[in-house]
Amino acid sequence: MLKKYLLAPGPTPVPPEVLLAMAQPIIHHRTPQFEAVFAEVQSGLQRLFQTRQEVLILASSGTGAMEAAVTNTTSPGDRVIVVNGGKFGERWGKIAAAYGLQVTELKVEWGQAVEPDAVARALREHPETRLVLMQASETSTTALHPVEAVARVTRGSEALLVVDGITAVGVLDLPMDALGIDMLITGSQKALMLPPGLAFLALSERAWAAAGASKTPRFYFDLKRERDNQRLHTTAWTPAISLVSGLHVALKMMFDEELANVYARHERLARATRAAAQALGLRLVAPTCPSPATTGIFLPDGVPGKLVGYLRDRVGVTFAGGQDELKGKIVRVAHLGYIGSFDVVTAIASLEMGLAAFGHRVAFGTGVGAAQAVLMEGMPPVAAA
Amino acid sequence: MLKKYLLAPGPTPVPPEVLLAMAQPIIHHRTPQFEAVFAEVQSGLQRLFQTRQEVLILASSGTGAMEAAVTNTTSPGDRVIVVNGGKFGERWGKIAAAYGLQVTELKVEWGQAVEPDAVARALREHPETRLVLMQASETSTTALHPVEAVARVTRGSEALLVVDGITAVGVLDLPMDALGIDMLITGSQKALMLPPGLAFLALSERAWAAAGASKTPRFYFDLKRERDNQRLHTTAWTPAISLVSGLHVALKMMFDEELANVYARHERLARATRAAAQALGLRLVAPTCPSPATTGIFLPDGVPGKLVGYLRDRVGVTFAGGQDELKGKIVRVAHLGYIGSFDVVTAIASLEMGLAAFGHRVAFGTGVGAAQAVLMEGMPPVAAA
Repeated sequence: MLKKYLLAPGPTPVPPEVLLAMAQPIIHHRTPQFEAVFAEVQSGLQRLFQTRQEVLILASSGTGAMEAAVTNTTSPGDRVIVVNGGKFGERWGKIAAAYGLQVTELKVEWGQAVEPDAVARALREHPETRLVLMQASETSTTALHPVEAVARVTRGSEALLVVDGITAVGVLDLPMDALGIDMLITGSQKALMLPPGLAFLALSERAWAAAGASKTPRFYFDLKRERDNQRLHTTAWTPAISLVSGLHVALKMMFDEELANVYARHERLARATRAAAQALGLRLVAPTCPSPATTGIFLPDGVPGKLVGYLRDRVGVTFAGGQDELKGKIVRVAHLGYIGSFDVVTAIASLEMGLAAFGHRVAFGTGVGAAQAVLMEGMPPVAAA
Repeated sequence: MLKKYLLAPGPTPVPPEVLLAMAQPIIHHRTPQFEAVFAEVQSGLQRLFQTRQEVLILASSGTGAMEAAVTNTTSPGDRVIVVNGGKFGERWGKIAAAYGLQVTELKVEWGQAVEPDAVARALREHPETRLVLMQASETSTTALHPVEAVARVTRGSEALLVVDGITAVGVLDLPMDALGIDMLITGSQKALMLPPGLAFLALSERAWAAAGASKTPRFYFDLKRERDNQRLHTTAWTPAISLVSGLHVALKMMFDEELANVYARHERLARATRAAAQALGLRLVAPTCPSPATTGIFLPDGVPGKLVGYLRDRVGVTFAGGQDELKGKIVRVAHLGYIGSFDVVTAIASLEMGLAAFGHRVAFGTGVGAAQAVLMEGMPPVAAA
């Protein structure tokens, strides 16, 4: 018997309530029934993004929305600044290059956060820059970038700030309008507790103005056409109907929990995981700027990267390993979405046991106990029991 | 967000594979399609019961099969010996009394196992005894009774041995024919990983002979009528079709894991739980004869029984509390059915945190660590990874 635990940074576990909603018989999308659901989902997403702008719903993975953000607000030959501190920062550069943009890359050491001053310097050097492209949470390194500080820089420039919030929206407080983010993006399979298949993005007024002047070719991801349709609570192309039905339930769950509590839970689970790593003498990948979405932990010397495959295939616990330069060196423990205290307990206990299976000396319960001490903050008061 | 963990001794968690099988469109039961499934389930149950006898499938809870065992093999005024070491032993006495039988009760202290000698003495005192009624695993006290030793006594007598194996069949090796059990009973919502709604029982040849002479009234639970129907792979009354479809999958899962491994897993999880209790300085309810199905643990002084409700309603972890004389004094942690190592980890971690929430001094990770040391035995070898 191999009971399965999904603790990777996307896809994340889908709650039974959402699975059941998606298992309902499919409804047609050109109907008042679907439009009513869609309208509720739209206003829920605005609340989640903390924006008065429309949040567009795309049938694509998050990368589709990243491409849409770039192609709808640029013309070939335009300059963009890319914050590249990991796999997803790198992806911004690849998208921009694919559409003939000039890329100024701000290379950030893996596990580090970008310096807002570096963005300011690059903008001074390239005042014609159209977009600053960054991640809020760089999933590959589990580092958190300082969106608020970067937004203070871009707000005073002509450049638009485009934030990949795929592992940030619904994880931490990221108020789009208040911070002055020009485009904010997320995907369904992270904090939104859905299977992959939906992406979401919102544009500020100045981003919509840029969209009006943009010459980069696009069709499926033509955001103005989408906006025209979505204002009527429908979509330009066929929507992923079941996922929208699931989103309806998932958003309700998040609002029932209250967003402040959702953010506090992610922060607490991440802090518990870091406490466990420290108690076990394991190094963090992003010790100075850890993301609350996922915690990257270096494997101790002598423990091979195949620990991750062993835990997944033989023990039933799916973590993510490292990518590129971190391949075989780290384990990434996600706290994203439908994850609670006892998922952290399972994560740390299985990691301790996996390390022991690979010959590493572990005092069982050391990491779990350190995590529990933090997780106690999430235990409800007894008086109310 | 309250993620739910079901760790009570029935109902137990249902695996997704089984849930999906039960969610299939319903088929009609008087069809070759259902009969084919039924026939496979019948032979699977024979394998599970380790018997050449037919295992009858009843649409009832386990108590229905307990009643059937009594009413089909006795006549009013007959004497039965009841081993009463808890709530379920007591139930044997109530069923017998309801049908006008004379009951000799062997009262066993809660948490203790019956002495086989006591059964032998009672049989010598009452040689006319028709049935000896006992539990293999007494769920209310988490004690394990010595079925094999009692069967050695009854095999040499005129009395039939009736074993309530509701939290034993599929948990531990209980070979019906080899031990000489005359009637063996179980239910669907325990080791068989199904929702409640099905009961199973098998009768030895001498039990069937007794059924031929029995005068106690019965209709729904008339086992000869059931046998006549089930020999044709159908049932006397409407079967619980979806549950039978689920059973088909659940049995396959158990055989894929291999029964020896299923038993070893239950034993290991129970032993890990006992190690955790000991490390935490908590007393066991059945220290000398612990069942591998469920572990009863006394709450420490000063911690009220409402800990169980707190963990269930506010933390999401459902244990069972105590019944009758143990009410408010214990917590029962189940290892039954679809339960793995990390369920034990969750059980102990939540118990530690719950105790702390109620003001009990706990060194976090102490119990979990002790459990992990035992659970390591269940980790697959790394070489095969």
